[in-house]
Amino acid sequence: MSQRIQISEVGPRDGLQSIDRVMPTAAKKAWIDALAAAGVSEIEVGSFVPPKLLPQMADTAEILTHALGKAGLAVVALVPNLKGAERAIAAGAHKISIPFSMSETHSIRNVRKDHAAMLDEIAAIATLVAEQPKGRRPQFDVGLSTAFGCTIEGPVPEDRVVRLAEAVIARGVSEVCLSDTTGYANPAQVRRLVRAVKEATGADRLNTLHLHNTRGLGLANVLAGLDEGITTFDSSQAGLGGCPFAPGASGNIVTEDLVFMLEAMGLDTGIDLDRLIAARAIISEALPGEPLYGFTPDAGVPLGFRKAAQ
Amino acid sequence: MSQRIQISEVGPRDGLQSIDRVMPTAAKKAWIDALAAAGVSEIEVGSFVPPKLLPQMADTAEILTHALGKAGLAVVALVPNLKGAERAIAAGAHKISIPFSMSETHSIRNVRKDHAAMLDEIAAIATLVAEQPKGRRPQFDVGLSTAFGCTIEGPVPEDRVVRLAEAVIARGVSEVCLSDTTGYANPAQVRRLVRAVKEATGADRLNTLHLHNTRGLGLANVLAGLDEGITTFDSSQAGLGGCPFAPGASGNIVTEDLVFMLEAMGLDTGIDLDRLIAARAIISEALPGEPLYGFTPDAGVPLGFRKAAQ
Repeated sequence: MSQRIQISEVGPRDGLQSIDRVMPTAAKKAWIDALAAAGVSEIEVGSFVPPKLLPQMADTAEILTHALGKAGLAVVALVPNLKGAERAIAAGAHKISIPFSMSETHSIRNVRKDHAAMLDEIAAIATLVAEQPKGRRPQFDVGLSTAFGCTIEGPVPEDRVVRLAEAVIARGVSEVCLSDTTGYANPAQVRRLVRAVKEATGADRLNTLHLHNTRGLGLANVLAGLDEGITTFDSSQAGLGGCPFAPGASGNIVTEDLVFMLEAMGLDTGIDLDRLIAARAIISEALPGEPLYGFTPDAGVPLGFRKAAQ
Repeated sequence: MSQRIQISEVGPRDGLQSIDRVMPTAAKKAWIDALAAAGVSEIEVGSFVPPKLLPQMADTAEILTHALGKAGLAVVALVPNLKGAERAIAAGAHKISIPFSMSETHSIRNVRKDHAAMLDEIAAIATLVAEQPKGRRPQFDVGLSTAFGCTIEGPVPEDRVVRLAEAVIARGVSEVCLSDTTGYANPAQVRRLVRAVKEATGADRLNTLHLHNTRGLGLANVLAGLDEGITTFDSSQAGLGGCPFAPGASGNIVTEDLVFMLEAMGLDTGIDLDRLIAARAIISEALPGEPLYGFTPDAGVPLGFRKAAQ
């Protein structure tokens, strides 16, 4: 049996919120259906933010309900604060995730909360989650964003990330995720920071990386994460939404290329690459002209390629 | 002191021979000057093939002579056969390299020689090299092309690559290089094959990888190579020439992104990234409209990025 690696598809949230146009609700549902049918077993389906701020996410509750109908699919919702968490829990999300910027400057500019205020918000959500009856209690994760550097502050000290990861776990959160929001990470740094956070918080508290491909290092950083025991990677189909810092580049790592790499390495993603690639057509139809990224969809898989064949 | 990693720039050969237009000789010289000034210490400057076959390489002898004038620059020439080797040696190349396809079908289609005939040709070149007076004796390397798979044969058995690497070394060749001609390689395979070839031939006989980015795995494969003790990587500035199998993708890994990754990891390439990126202008001027690849040139380096600062 080959090792199972979990891919958490964030396109319907991270991808779509980076595009000005709004994908119609029916297309979102069809896309999620196609992803689930391809074997994607975890999808971040939307974000419970005010529709005035992100009209692209206005139908998140409806999308979430639809996704809950897919057997075996873990349904994730992003929440910016306690109010969002209440809505996500009411909607029945299996997992809720809040971004927490390791750059305090970025945090203040982005959500008008310093680190102390964010930790209070996280503690309040953790309490709310703990109060839920067991069958309806979602997993609660915190995404440590800008963990590898910030476009405003520059380098982010690794001991600060470790300290804040510990603080988050101490407030009753299940897991932290390290997020390379800015595409600054390199493989040596990924190995170092994953090791340090796992050592400080316990190995089972950090299982997920959220990586970007801004400088082309996304999959090399995945490899570095695998080496340190990371078992879940966020990625976005077709690198949807692109990267605001680099024209022509995907922001999130591209699910198709990630699946190809992992399967070629003999790891098990549970995803059928052909069916995954076929799902790109739904995006193209719903958002005509939107750039779709990824190398493997253009190049095709190697001749004679079979899952775990190498 | 951080570890030194050698980058062997193959753009003037591999990049330019993939483009139909011919870069003017003066531009080639200016490009090589700019690369050397940026700290690139090894350049494959051309190929001694018949000009009728590759008119882009017709000025290789003149370019090679020019490159020899750069102090400290290792000047490499590709040779397809003994005749090419004679010309490269006459021109004074520091290193000559012949591609040897691990796929016999590909070898026969490409150079009309089966494996036995290629080994004879390699032996003849090795003898010619050994006959040169010590001061004029070039290093002689063999590039084991399609080592990670072939677009005609599909998977290439790893034991065949190991056996042929041994056969090549037994004929008096200095070093072999593993080439992912088709962009089929994955990191697990890179680790396995590098280890196997080093074990069979001696660790100092395999120091170089020639990787492509056809499916986006190029830099992940670099990381896998680094882990196995590889110290030299071929790459092409701006991914020049593109990839015939994947429109919009570079063929060779892009030097700029490779330098960024290695330097960010605290390794020493000896290359000034800003000056390297500036050299792209020479290509754009000489070959207007030619697509230039690479993520780092578009995105820029991270704020606060300094060599080995992370």
